[in-house]
Amino acid sequence: MKTEFELINAICTKSKTRNPKLKIGIGDDCAVICQNSQTDLVVTTDLLIEDIDFKLDWSKPEFVGHKALAASLSDIAAMGAKPVWALISIGVPEKIWASDFVERFYDGWLRLARKFAVELAGGDISRAPDKIVIDSIAAGETRKNRAILRSGAQAGDFVFVTGNLGGAAAGLRLLESGKTKNPASSSLIQKQLCPDPQTKIGLILGEKRLATAMIDLSDGLSSDLRHLCEASKTGAKIYAEKIPIHPKLKSFKEFRADALRLALDGGEDFELLFTANPKNAKKIEKLLPAASRIGEITANAGRIELCQDSKNILIEPRGFRHFGAIENAKL
Amino acid sequence: MKTEFELINAICTKSKTRNPKLKIGIGDDCAVICQNSQTDLVVTTDLLIEDIDFKLDWSKPEFVGHKALAASLSDIAAMGAKPVWALISIGVPEKIWASDFVERFYDGWLRLARKFAVELAGGDISRAPDKIVIDSIAAGETRKNRAILRSGAQAGDFVFVTGNLGGAAAGLRLLESGKTKNPASSSLIQKQLCPDPQTKIGLILGEKRLATAMIDLSDGLSSDLRHLCEASKTGAKIYAEKIPIHPKLKSFKEFRADALRLALDGGEDFELLFTANPKNAKKIEKLLPAASRIGEITANAGRIELCQDSKNILIEPRGFRHFGAIENAKL
Repeated sequence: MKTEFELINAICTKSKTRNPKLKIGIGDDCAVICQNSQTDLVVTTDLLIEDIDFKLDWSKPEFVGHKALAASLSDIAAMGAKPVWALISIGVPEKIWASDFVERFYDGWLRLARKFAVELAGGDISRAPDKIVIDSIAAGETRKNRAILRSGAQAGDFVFVTGNLGGAAAGLRLLESGKTKNPASSSLIQKQLCPDPQTKIGLILGEKRLATAMIDLSDGLSSDLRHLCEASKTGAKIYAEKIPIHPKLKSFKEFRADALRLALDGGEDFELLFTANPKNAKKIEKLLPAASRIGEITANAGRIELCQDSKNILIEPRGFRHFGAIENAKL
Repeated sequence: MKTEFELINAICTKSKTRNPKLKIGIGDDCAVICQNSQTDLVVTTDLLIEDIDFKLDWSKPEFVGHKALAASLSDIAAMGAKPVWALISIGVPEKIWASDFVERFYDGWLRLARKFAVELAGGDISRAPDKIVIDSIAAGETRKNRAILRSGAQAGDFVFVTGNLGGAAAGLRLLESGKTKNPASSSLIQKQLCPDPQTKIGLILGEKRLATAMIDLSDGLSSDLRHLCEASKTGAKIYAEKIPIHPKLKSFKEFRADALRLALDGGEDFELLFTANPKNAKKIEKLLPAASRIGEITANAGRIELCQDSKNILIEPRGFRHFGAIENAKL
């Protein structure tokens, strides 16, 4: 079976960009479009489908609305951009329409939108046969030619992540196993159902020109670091003991042995993974105490290594995947 | 059960626009966003769901791709704008992924995109549980403050439609009844499955400033004329004998008695409905021979009349509707 990436490559070949307005098309967290002499527009779309991306048994409607926008704001943060407006398309089955789902969905969406002054510019409401379908579209702005791409990393750059990792994946496991009563589980479940986009950190990195490349952690560190390295034609080496594992993972014996794996491969943390020139390391540590330096970029294109107990292990992408052998795919 | 319009009104109230960048938000064919000192950006999203908006038994994958983009280009045409870029999100069940559906879908999409120099800027590919889900997002440009809104019609303006009406609805009936073999059916079915957006006409109306208000005919004339009149706080009077009924309708005895009803209430013709100051009527007739003048705007807000055999009948919106008593709803 073809992979999503093979398909995307085929589409890219067929749709070669000719319009100079489109500065970056398929292949980054957002497309980058020339807007005016001072600013560029970045724009992203994320499809969420009931029982694939969320379950009503687990999630309040407000959380579904929050997460739909959060996923898009995370893509905008990953460009170093400021979010400005958004669209939301929603398809709902008739029995969901008759409930308060849609109002509560919008309440959650609007609450997060207000936090970052994002304007609801429009959308589409449609009937769906049996599952809820949501497409979240958001747009942001950067100063001219300042969007932070996946492709800017260079050998020798340091690798950073914001926040801590593995929490959303652990939260998902707790929901799947029904272990939601333990008081320690709430912050993990919150991270899965109601994630915070790293909008402020993305903006600081964009405004201060501190990152050479950036991607958001939606698929998981092992997958997203590979995306960044592939776009930059580099490799990377990261250090197990430096990876910021979500502190609540150690409260659960079933996660203790597995914590590093969850932090490496768990998706949907919506933290930011970025690279920076070593000369900016001090400034980053000072400005962004929530960022951890976890490794460095190497010249070994395609080689992603994990250094653990003084051994180097090649790591494969094992993040969230939609189809068989491959991962979820952003065009 | 609440209507889609009640919901949208509630959302509008909660999300009052404050950002001056967003010139027109919820309530028109596209949102209008300030882009630079010369141009505005218009942007639209359309959700299409298998078995609600298309059926694989009826439609080639290329046609589904074509129609997804055509629906968005039609919205852009209705603003008098030039399409520039687009995004496409698609969710597909695993067995469809294993087929050639997605490649052929993109082939149809890209063929139409090339025709109008629309750039594929990005998208999202996801797994869906059982039905194909598509969200089509497109953006266009107008000269500054030149987007043609639904709200600009004034009493005394003439009402025009492009092309001819009822063809897509008749095509749908032929597909539903399996009557696809009659040679006369092909152009009706084509109108349903592979509609042409009126991009060139939209652009002419925009560039020459000939229309006071415009909307695309996606829901049906009776519904879309009401949308336009509500936005403009006017009424309208249209003349049955002036409505351009699709010429192939008379080839089918089952459509002959019903032809006017199909033209009034049938959706998805993707023609343009626009209003113009009478002083521009001659210019419009000359520049746009495909446009028919079907009536005029009146000061009777909310009153939409059909004049037939010298009698005036109030017409109610009977176009495509997603939920119970109400219509499909564009935010």
